[in-house]
Amino acid sequence: MKPYFAENFGNPSNLYEAGRKAKSAVSEATNKITKVLNCASDEFIFTSGATEADNLAIAGIARANKEFGNKIIISAVEHKGIMSVCDALAKEGFEIVKIPVNKFGIIDLKKLKKEINSKTILVSITYADSETGTIQPIAEIAKIIQEFKRKKYPKPYTLVASGYPLFHTDASQAAAYLDINVKKLGADLMTLSAHKIYGPKGIGGLFIKKGIKIKPIIFGGGQQSLRSGTQNVPAIVGFGEAISLAKKNKKSEYIRVKKLRDKLEKGIFKTISKVVLNGHFKNRLPNFLNISILDIEGEALLLYLDEKGIAVGTGSACNSENLEPSYVLTALGRPYEHIHGSIRFTLGKYTKDSDINYVLKNLPEMVKKLRQIS
Amino acid sequence: MKPYFAENFGNPSNLYEAGRKAKSAVSEATNKITKVLNCASDEFIFTSGATEADNLAIAGIARANKEFGNKIIISAVEHKGIMSVCDALAKEGFEIVKIPVNKFGIIDLKKLKKEINSKTILVSITYADSETGTIQPIAEIAKIIQEFKRKKYPKPYTLVASGYPLFHTDASQAAAYLDINVKKLGADLMTLSAHKIYGPKGIGGLFIKKGIKIKPIIFGGGQQSLRSGTQNVPAIVGFGEAISLAKKNKKSEYIRVKKLRDKLEKGIFKTISKVVLNGHFKNRLPNFLNISILDIEGEALLLYLDEKGIAVGTGSACNSENLEPSYVLTALGRPYEHIHGSIRFTLGKYTKDSDINYVLKNLPEMVKKLRQIS
Repeated sequence: MKPYFAENFGNPSNLYEAGRKAKSAVSEATNKITKVLNCASDEFIFTSGATEADNLAIAGIARANKEFGNKIIISAVEHKGIMSVCDALAKEGFEIVKIPVNKFGIIDLKKLKKEINSKTILVSITYADSETGTIQPIAEIAKIIQEFKRKKYPKPYTLVASGYPLFHTDASQAAAYLDINVKKLGADLMTLSAHKIYGPKGIGGLFIKKGIKIKPIIFGGGQQSLRSGTQNVPAIVGFGEAISLAKKNKKSEYIRVKKLRDKLEKGIFKTISKVVLNGHFKNRLPNFLNISILDIEGEALLLYLDEKGIAVGTGSACNSENLEPSYVLTALGRPYEHIHGSIRFTLGKYTKDSDINYVLKNLPEMVKKLRQIS
Repeated sequence: MKPYFAENFGNPSNLYEAGRKAKSAVSEATNKITKVLNCASDEFIFTSGATEADNLAIAGIARANKEFGNKIIISAVEHKGIMSVCDALAKEGFEIVKIPVNKFGIIDLKKLKKEINSKTILVSITYADSETGTIQPIAEIAKIIQEFKRKKYPKPYTLVASGYPLFHTDASQAAAYLDINVKKLGADLMTLSAHKIYGPKGIGGLFIKKGIKIKPIIFGGGQQSLRSGTQNVPAIVGFGEAISLAKKNKKSEYIRVKKLRDKLEKGIFKTISKVVLNGHFKNRLPNFLNISILDIEGEALLLYLDEKGIAVGTGSACNSENLEPSYVLTALGRPYEHIHGSIRFTLGKYTKDSDINYVLKNLPEMVKKLRQIS
């Protein structure tokens, strides 16, 4: 990224040499990304991050296709970016249906099948959620949608390959460890975020299958046509590099990180009583461990751990901006006290075996102390 | 910015130490910006750039305040970001009125006064445009709006200080050289872009006076409440530093750059015949020189100059994505052949006297050559 901050600071929209250099860097980065996604280079749009990409996917599709229906189906465990834009669309007259999940956080495919009807223009289900890391059966969801379309549209079916509902998935969390080949997944739209795969903040993007009608949410000079604004060249270059590296190391990192996560999980369950796993025991990102430690306060534990240099998240109400407990854990049917004591560990490329040992050494003692207080 | 890419990569929304460090960096940068703007720290929202900020200002105000009126007034020389979001709002039922400019590019204040009525919710006039650098009389525009409000609203006037119309200005181009104190300017909303003041690409922001009703265009987890998405910490830090440096060097750079620009301008008019100045001869950013060189093609000259390492812009049709000649120059009443041969020089902090000499040495010869061809 570095040279594109200073020496090569050109704007890709400019015709002169600095502009052309910038344009070629953007085009090279785009190719790196679309190669991993297995799509054409004009099927990917850069945005300022996953939140904007999710907003563009959902509001952009809804507003551009309302003549074909007003129903949008999401899951009960979607990210706030998706929940909030759906709330806004509900006020514009769209019907938003949230498919419940089972106690492991996996969406109810039968309910999904039942809810898809001729008014449904979009189904948006996140690949793996950002609280428990539970992986949704994306390819199966795509198949259900395809089966519906096959019945809905007369032959030749290929002519309406992009009929309704369209299928969007947010793969931000999943991209570091899972396959994000859009053709294999059967997605019509897919959100990515660079900083979730060790790229820079402030850049993300949206795969949009060719031929899909979509409206911008940011209008302007027509850079990238659907998304205006001077292109963030250094960030785009960093994104391209990050996704190539992620792809290269995906398999080995999956195995390495999963081993560490499993060690952490087993260690905690062995040394601490009254612990509950949140999310799916198997279909879960290899770097996620979300547990509820009963009879403690998640936030208090977070602060204790922070003092020892251990950074965790919690679904506890005190940790959220609106002081409500995690709606994702609530959707899993967890009682209030489970959510209150929930702690999320996320591992990554910098997590070493000694880090796991360090947590396993400190955590039981802290939990004991906190339980004595409570 | 550098440490916030790797060592301090925290997300300001997180409670643990890395998050708190990031939050404090963001808050420090915000203070640097709001100090220059002379506003409160909660009156500034970060966006991915000026285009998003303009979209947020105009669509956000329009959609949140439609019960108070549906008329939006802009100028005929607004940036594409503003033109395009207004086109979109026209489809949503808003009335968009474009105030014409005189031959120097200054908006017609009498027409503006006449157009403001009880249905007008927003006036948006760019501080200095990005093609000619012509500076609009922002404080006078604010005064006209204030006078209208004084008549419209019963006393005590202070209670409706944010009545309608609201006043937005895009100060992206102006910020490097002109005063951007929002209180002196009388702006209710003001757009900024970091990369126009030597900060990084991909970051900008919007000043929004306290108490103003505005709707988000990007919905999500409620970071910054009005603009969701993980905050772009390194870019925000760079923005804060850039605006402080710009403020510090504003006066001396204004004088230095104006002297160089004036030398370039005089030199060109002296050595090349049939040259016309585009924009105001005096009320113009000190770094802008937009001229029309008759009987040549702007794009051909751009390519010739590029070969010599001189980067310029042109309003010529061939240079735009939609192959239409510059609407800004058209609004100045310029005939087609003037726009066709228009060339924009923009100087900056890295422009030296020797650069001006180099252009003055090469340009006349190139123009001669091109005129022989045509």
